[in-house]
Amino acid sequence: MLLSEIASRSALPLPEKDCEIERLATLDSAKEGELSFFHSEKYLSQLSATKASAVILEERYAQRLPKGCIALVTNEPYLKLALVSALFAHTLGVSSDEPLLAEGCEIDPSVRFGRAVKVGRGTVLMAGSYIGDGVEIGEDCVIHPNVTIYHGSRIGDRCTIHSGTVIGSDGYGFAHTADGRHIKIHQLGNAILEDDVEIGANCCIDRGAIGDTVIRRGSKIDNLVQIGHNCDIGENSLIVAQVGISGSSILGRNVVMGGQSATAGHLKIGDFATVAARGGVTKSLEGGKIYGGFPAVELRVWRRMQAALSRLAKKRA
Amino acid sequence: MLLSEIASRSALPLPEKDCEIERLATLDSAKEGELSFFHSEKYLSQLSATKASAVILEERYAQRLPKGCIALVTNEPYLKLALVSALFAHTLGVSSDEPLLAEGCEIDPSVRFGRAVKVGRGTVLMAGSYIGDGVEIGEDCVIHPNVTIYHGSRIGDRCTIHSGTVIGSDGYGFAHTADGRHIKIHQLGNAILEDDVEIGANCCIDRGAIGDTVIRRGSKIDNLVQIGHNCDIGENSLIVAQVGISGSSILGRNVVMGGQSATAGHLKIGDFATVAARGGVTKSLEGGKIYGGFPAVELRVWRRMQAALSRLAKKRA
Amino acid sequence: MLLSEIASRSALPLPEKDCEIERLATLDSAKEGELSFFHSEKYLSQLSATKASAVILEERYAQRLPKGCIALVTNEPYLKLALVSALFAHTLGVSSDEPLLAEGCEIDPSVRFGRAVKVGRGTVLMAGSYIGDGVEIGEDCVIHPNVTIYHGSRIGDRCTIHSGTVIGSDGYGFAHTADGRHIKIHQLGNAILEDDVEIGANCCIDRGAIGDTVIRRGSKIDNLVQIGHNCDIGENSLIVAQVGISGSSILGRNVVMGGQSATAGHLKIGDFATVAARGGVTKSLEGGKIYGGFPAVELRVWRRMQAALSRLAKKRA
Repeated sequence: MLLSEIASRSALPLPEKDCEIERLATLDSAKEGELSFFHSEKYLSQLSATKASAVILEERYAQRLPKGCIALVTNEPYLKLALVSALFAHTLGVSSDEPLLAEGCEIDPSVRFGRAVKVGRGTVLMAGSYIGDGVEIGEDCVIHPNVTIYHGSRIGDRCTIHSGTVIGSDGYGFAHTADGRHIKIHQLGNAILEDDVEIGANCCIDRGAIGDTVIRRGSKIDNLVQIGHNCDIGENSLIVAQVGISGSSILGRNVVMGGQSATAGHLKIGDFATVAARGGVTKSLEGGKIYGGFPAVELRVWRRMQAALSRLAKKRA
Repeated sequence: MLLSEIASRSALPLPEKDCEIERLATLDSAKEGELSFFHSEKYLSQLSATKASAVILEERYAQRLPKGCIALVTNEPYLKLALVSALFAHTLGVSSDEPLLAEGCEIDPSVRFGRAVKVGRGTVLMAGSYIGDGVEIGEDCVIHPNVTIYHGSRIGDRCTIHSGTVIGSDGYGFAHTADGRHIKIHQLGNAILEDDVEIGANCCIDRGAIGDTVIRRGSKIDNLVQIGHNCDIGENSLIVAQVGISGSSILGRNVVMGGQSATAGHLKIGDFATVAARGGVTKSLEGGKIYGGFPAVELRVWRRMQAALSRLAKKRA
Repeated sequence: MLLSEIASRSALPLPEKDCEIERLATLDSAKEGELSFFHSEKYLSQLSATKASAVILEERYAQRLPKGCIALVTNEPYLKLALVSALFAHTLGVSSDEPLLAEGCEIDPSVRFGRAVKVGRGTVLMAGSYIGDGVEIGEDCVIHPNVTIYHGSRIGDRCTIHSGTVIGSDGYGFAHTADGRHIKIHQLGNAILEDDVEIGANCCIDRGAIGDTVIRRGSKIDNLVQIGHNCDIGENSLIVAQVGISGSSILGRNVVMGGQSATAGHLKIGDFATVAARGGVTKSLEGGKIYGGFPAVELRVWRRMQAALSRLAKKRA
């Protein structure tokens, strides 16, 4: 889509130059032909280095753009991002193609496919599942009944997905108007499961907003787990039931998240860290240690806090 | 159904007068032709003002009923309510009608309909969804695959419902017998989504017990959220993943509930209040403030409590 | 399968004697023709009393086996158990038989059945549900739309299962290799619901690992609840929304678990105990009392702790 068309359809001022825009991208990942956005000083250092062809941003930051990068100036960059995201959203519908099935697949006749689905050798798709447009599923997977895999998701080899689980649903992203309404940021990334991933029943793995959500090789996820958009779950991680991982969290390899634990968004947990059941992680954590409590601290510190509170209560009783 | 028939089928004493009863209703909402019940002194002030044609209650309260209102006297009013609720329950079955589809709908052929369903213009119903008896869905909605909408639910315009979500499932209501069994209070209300509501994946929005559950205009709900029976979620509210809103909670407009937060039942949260992630609301909260912790207090107070506990533990270490 | 074949397919040393093995079993439940395993000193007392025909264990424990019980010796008994479990796993597929339907069933034509399913008189199976191989459902049940019941599950009479719920999904069990990979313990037990059980929407009731998960007569479970493998939920228990019961927990009769509460695994909660909302049970609890907080203590103690913390924070403010 031409940048000028994007601008006019989103009530942005027409850019001084025009160019073809293929997709939206973050400042640091954008390439030529991509449109980016800047709405938080947190990413200021990325602004002058971006390779995006154009950036939506406030006027006062426009001078920091690299030479040749076109500014789309607005007082409300995040709200404009929401409007622009709608122009690049996948068109949902009920069209269906014959999927491309490798040898030895077993497909229940009630499985419904979108367009251009590929399924690898020896994979079993059980009753009532839905496999969206452009989804690719690897070899020797088992997709249990009533699973939903949204368009564009990619599933590796030897993955198991239990019933009721939803892969690639929209992340929770909205821009807010001055009068308190919420405008959807269309979620343009995908959800990627690498090889040997197992996901329990009734989980939600959201697709990325811009860029992908990734569950890396060998990770095992229990039931009723929420993985937010743009999370990166490191290889061989273990995520126990009812955990919630907020958007853009990055877990290292062999991280263990105990039952009902959670993370705030945009943080990192180092390799081989363990968060005990119910732990609530509010900032990045070093690897190799055991954490617990909310806000999460080292587990032995949290235990000391609980013991101190218990003594205090007895003293006053 | 005649009141005398209700009485005899529920082992209630025959009323002194008879009348036709159309439905069950709460004391304050009941109109002529409706049957109500009284089982908690909390609602004592509503007893003498009710417009119900008859009320199930203990004998000692019968004299407080307005003139002309018929008493159905019992020692176990809540248990009798459970038995009576069964008489008014929707008959579940697998009958199916052609739905009434407005122009420009896209309906996957695997979608199953109950009887008397209406779907508005431009709405997309994806694979494997079930739309129950009498459901009405507005215009330009997207119902993702494998959604279940129970009988009687009403969905406004421009709503999006993600996969695995269940709208209108039974609320959790039981009366208890002396020997510890639980008798279902059949859930006779509906679930209502107003316009521009988005609901994430694998959520549960329970139908009302008597009266409806309502999600008001513009509210956005993330994944794995539980909304109990008879909740009223104010317009433009934001409810993040894994939140649990207990029955009969009333949220104002633009309330924000952070991830994994929760409320006890029968309370109010004022307009523009925010409950931080993990906050557990145990009593009604004023609007316009930020709360956190469990039991929830103002967030700055909770932070002070955590800091004090941390210092205390260090002192004793 | 011959024990020698099991050994050779799992890279275990060939046993000195051979015998036919019908299934895997725990040390205390095993009978002749069954293979057991020993990987934790916690079960040491069961070792010398087991009736298993053979046991996988470390060499140093082999002398404690009863006479005639064959030792399968390894340095990694838990990892070998994982490999052996795969040999006994149910073969998943999409084969389907005509179910055996008693009189007066109502079955939506979109319901999919595995092989050898039995459904009792008067039961209603609504749209989009999947009923796996060998499942037996009793009389007068209602299975709402889009429910999944895995192979081997047994559902009693007068049960209600709400939409999106998954019965008999795999429990979360893995053995771990020295290089940090996770090897699935195939879940060979079943999920059993006795009579008069109601299960809300989007719940997960995992099948047993070895032995069954049981929800006893009259228990009522709300929405989004997780019941781990090998749990035993006592009769007439009430489990409110978003609760997580970890594996091998044993609840007595009429236990109440408040919303978002949870238990660690391998513990017991006595008859008529109540765990308040959000309570996190970390060790076994006596019956007849009310508990709360995390780690859960008697509720009045937890309230005293919260009050002490509140006073402490005020003093320091």
